[in-house]
Amino acid sequence: MTQQTRPQFRLDHVMIRVRDLDRALGFYRDILGMKVVRQVEYEGGRFTNSFLAFDGQQDQTALELTWNWDRDMPYESGDAWGHLALVVPNLVGAMDYLAACDVRIKTPPRQMAHGSRMIGFVLDADDHLVELVEPLTGA
Amino acid sequence: MTQQTRPQFRLDHVMIRVRDLDRALGFYRDILGMKVVRQVEYEGGRFTNSFLAFDGQQDQTALELTWNWDRDMPYESGDAWGHLALVVPNLVGAMDYLAACDVRIKTPPRQMAHGSRMIGFVLDADDHLVELVEPLTGA
Repeated sequence: MTQQTRPQFRLDHVMIRVRDLDRALGFYRDILGMKVVRQVEYEGGRFTNSFLAFDGQQDQTALELTWNWDRDMPYESGDAWGHLALVVPNLVGAMDYLAACDVRIKTPPRQMAHGSRMIGFVLDADDHLVELVEPLTGA
Repeated sequence: MTQQTRPQFRLDHVMIRVRDLDRALGFYRDILGMKVVRQVEYEGGRFTNSFLAFDGQQDQTALELTWNWDRDMPYESGDAWGHLALVVPNLVGAMDYLAACDVRIKTPPRQMAHGSRMIGFVLDADDHLVELVEPLTGA
């Protein structure tokens, strides 16, 4: 460690790469309802960064979608990164809504394999895993 | 799309996998100063989920570290997931602090290759990329 005073860190955003920004916005903006709070096109680097947040979370942690204009190959997901998780008041209702929007359901609502919470998983347009869960009750 | 009403989604957490929870907490808790807001050990599945947040962000988006007890191999990062990003009041000071804590510097503070913002990158204990950036000024 160090004798230096710890700076004040805050979680600003999480960045994932997408192959088609319009297609990705079709999920995060149009279906989930996130707002694009900032979007920058970098002509020189031929990429666009789009920052999204939900209403009420706009000064909080954002989701950054990076779209490299010339990328043709799918991205490799690896297994280091797990998922984004969304909290919803009603899990079954939310999964119904997503299914009605033709979002691909990876795991319908079920009890966690080794726990008691109900969770579900869907895939975004780039096969990024998105968990759905209800708020924790109690402590 | 659908005629159904859109549920109220919120970004709850982001999950990454770590090979050694104590070592990962040495970075996120001890060096960055995040608080463990919830931690659950799943004896049956032989894994632990640890949820962390910064002070002032504890009811906001959390970072979930998943530690699979029996995992020996490093995780594959792929290129689909980019990075976590931390906002700090002073980028150079924060990078100095992290260097003094023996955190591995990936990119010292520099101007974005195709933009004007100053950014830096460090690596966490599992080689996950962590960006440091100052708050946006102006609009």
